[in-house]
Amino acid sequence: MESKFTLGMIGLGTMGRNLLLNMADKGFAVTGYDKDPKMIQKLKEDGAKHNLTAYSSLEDFIGSLELPRRIMLLVPAGPIVDSVILELLPLLDKGDIIIDSGNSHFTDTSKRAAELSGQGMHFFGMGISGGEEGARFGPSIMPGGDKTAYGEMKEILEAVSAKVNGDPCVAYIGPGASGHFVKMVHNGIEYAMMQLLAEAYDIMKNALEYSNEQIHDVFEQWNNGRLQSFLLEVTKDIFAFKDEKTGGYLVDYIKDEAKSKGTGKWTSQVSMDLQLPIPSINEAVSTRDLSKFKSLRTALAKTYTQDKYTVGDKDKFIVELEQALYFAVISSYAQGLHLLWQASITYEYELNLHEIAQIWRGGCIIRAEFLEDIYQAYKKQPDLEHLYADAGIAKKLEEILPGMRSVVSHTVLTGLAVPAFASALTYFDSLKTERMPSNLIQAQRDFFGAHQFERTDAEGTFHALWNPVKS
Amino acid sequence: MESKFTLGMIGLGTMGRNLLLNMADKGFAVTGYDKDPKMIQKLKEDGAKHNLTAYSSLEDFIGSLELPRRIMLLVPAGPIVDSVILELLPLLDKGDIIIDSGNSHFTDTSKRAAELSGQGMHFFGMGISGGEEGARFGPSIMPGGDKTAYGEMKEILEAVSAKVNGDPCVAYIGPGASGHFVKMVHNGIEYAMMQLLAEAYDIMKNALEYSNEQIHDVFEQWNNGRLQSFLLEVTKDIFAFKDEKTGGYLVDYIKDEAKSKGTGKWTSQVSMDLQLPIPSINEAVSTRDLSKFKSLRTALAKTYTQDKYTVGDKDKFIVELEQALYFAVISSYAQGLHLLWQASITYEYELNLHEIAQIWRGGCIIRAEFLEDIYQAYKKQPDLEHLYADAGIAKKLEEILPGMRSVVSHTVLTGLAVPAFASALTYFDSLKTERMPSNLIQAQRDFFGAHQFERTDAEGTFHALWNPVKS
Repeated sequence: MESKFTLGMIGLGTMGRNLLLNMADKGFAVTGYDKDPKMIQKLKEDGAKHNLTAYSSLEDFIGSLELPRRIMLLVPAGPIVDSVILELLPLLDKGDIIIDSGNSHFTDTSKRAAELSGQGMHFFGMGISGGEEGARFGPSIMPGGDKTAYGEMKEILEAVSAKVNGDPCVAYIGPGASGHFVKMVHNGIEYAMMQLLAEAYDIMKNALEYSNEQIHDVFEQWNNGRLQSFLLEVTKDIFAFKDEKTGGYLVDYIKDEAKSKGTGKWTSQVSMDLQLPIPSINEAVSTRDLSKFKSLRTALAKTYTQDKYTVGDKDKFIVELEQALYFAVISSYAQGLHLLWQASITYEYELNLHEIAQIWRGGCIIRAEFLEDIYQAYKKQPDLEHLYADAGIAKKLEEILPGMRSVVSHTVLTGLAVPAFASALTYFDSLKTERMPSNLIQAQRDFFGAHQFERTDAEGTFHALWNPVKS
Repeated sequence: MESKFTLGMIGLGTMGRNLLLNMADKGFAVTGYDKDPKMIQKLKEDGAKHNLTAYSSLEDFIGSLELPRRIMLLVPAGPIVDSVILELLPLLDKGDIIIDSGNSHFTDTSKRAAELSGQGMHFFGMGISGGEEGARFGPSIMPGGDKTAYGEMKEILEAVSAKVNGDPCVAYIGPGASGHFVKMVHNGIEYAMMQLLAEAYDIMKNALEYSNEQIHDVFEQWNNGRLQSFLLEVTKDIFAFKDEKTGGYLVDYIKDEAKSKGTGKWTSQVSMDLQLPIPSINEAVSTRDLSKFKSLRTALAKTYTQDKYTVGDKDKFIVELEQALYFAVISSYAQGLHLLWQASITYEYELNLHEIAQIWRGGCIIRAEFLEDIYQAYKKQPDLEHLYADAGIAKKLEEILPGMRSVVSHTVLTGLAVPAFASALTYFDSLKTERMPSNLIQAQRDFFGAHQFERTDAEGTFHALWNPVKS
């Protein structure tokens, strides 16, 4: 009797193929399916040493898998996931496991899990981060949903995931669509980090008049310290990368119009449904969108000319800029984690934030030295409402706050745009304000719309006859 | 034969009742329907001089209306609108007109319009702004959808709307759900204006140490100038309003936790779908949400103590603060109008932005002196992409920009939170930047995710082998 495969991958694009190669490296008997023969060919070439094969017939593919079948989907999020599931269903047996590892919207995952559960299938949504290389050599994995299915997948996932101090960067996230939710928020934090690095670059280029070489050196130096992170490492390498075509630095020949695939936007939109503020992520999303208005920007730059501004004491300023970036990075993680805290309550995800910090420490795009601090903070205080409330974090923030204030204060005077830096600071300042001016908003709403207000000295809601002349 | 009514209102809460009284004042034969006898009684009392009546039987109500029936809904947005329509349908004739005047989400309005059109009914979604008093004495009205239905409603709507220089504050907005879309964006701008006024109050209270009397006087003085607006008028009155219970100023006894009903959130969420940045509106939404975390804020205020900061030259600062507020207000309208510009393209709403500015000049919550400038700008240039690109607006902005920079620069140093002010400035600074640092974001995405990038010197998309060692 022919031996069967432990897992089958549907979708042999870069991510699916690399993840399959990763599994084969770890000794698992796996196979794949793709409609495109070129993708199958590519898998066979890359996986030659493991004799990796794949099917172009869905029936043969399904027939090749041991029971219960473990079927992983790495296809584009959206309607394609549904059509693949529809094709699969008649071929499956009760108890089979479908794992959607794409960037599906968590509300889609909820719906699919409920539908498939009714048909006796195990379904879970799983976030994978780490890009091409992560998938190939060790990603961070965020599986959520059906716990039985996780039990069947645990060994494979722990084997292929990234490791930090020997610990795998994968853990059961929680019920429902929590895996995709956590991956979405991961991406939201990623958007904020990328925007902050872009603003730091802009400041170095335009306020400090640094060359690409100097910018590379600064990013490299920062990356050797507390700001060490995958995105900073990538960024420093970018500033050393020469363009074959022109001989200059490639970064200078890339259009300043950022693209996006939507996970940042989803994070912002969902945060608003949950009434949980994440302004730095919002600004990162908005600024990518804004960058696309190139012709408008070019026209407005001619109208609103700006005197060139150069910082006097560059040595002092670059120290402050590192502090500001660190402050803003901490604040971006804090916003994302606060959103997870809220989602865990609203959606009953039962999230362990320290475990999430733990699995983000390696493999994923937002992996960073600083996640160790986050991990420790939540491990010590599993119910910590907000990262700012941790004593260790507070000590760090207090130290670097003057630098943060100085950088934002300077740049808004000079006309350099710092949307993510500024929003991180105003977010912090709002959150540390015991008495905000939002009482005025309650008063205004009651004045013109009779929406009522609450009092500080009594329970209940009230309405005032603000304007007796006109009422 | 009994004479029939020209229009019937379903939902006799404050808004519906006041609008009906307004119609009766203008000589229209109108009636109402409500399930709640108390609401009918209230209408009869308030409308005694017009012998206003209303029905508690839907059949009798429908039978009392002339053909084609004009039925206006002022019921809470959401499923209630659908259930009212379902109840109505068996009683109606083809050609009857249903007008949803609540704050329905524009996507719901699109769906309902399509469904009802298939059944031979005219449907349109209509935004009304002006609060209780506006509804009673002259609101701003934003009707969109079926143009035939608008023709049947035009006379009534023009009669009851606010007037500015004799012109009614109502105009046919455009097809589909454009009326509700424009009303939603109106509310988004309203959120930003309210947040900006709250921040100005906070600065006067905490950086200038002004009393409520002084704050009232400043707002009053501003309201006599170019900042004249309904919301500023309301705000100045609030700072003069004494609390019956304590004898102090009521504003000091109102909780600093702002509520919201969702239209601001919708504006932000939709703007992200349209990839059109409106960061000041986003910050206004986020800051209302943030204000609700009172216990967290109270705890963090103890951790992150802030030295009291008082401005030295208060006279100079208050001049700059007026400039900053004016700058941020212009920017908030600019963002909202830019969103309408985009929606008009994406949804084919055929919006006339100068007409929208015209009908916002009176009756609505965001009516302001400054809308005259907006009106003139779009009248002169119907295709104006962005308000910042108008020469007259540019002249104003250039004049007040130094004040704006000074206020934001100062406040971020002092620890006072200015999320809406700061985001208006960073938005402006981004939009007037010909070369943003977003090239780095394209590079990063290609580096770790092979998402490709575009070049400044060639068409097409490209991928670089950023990291040959690891690839």
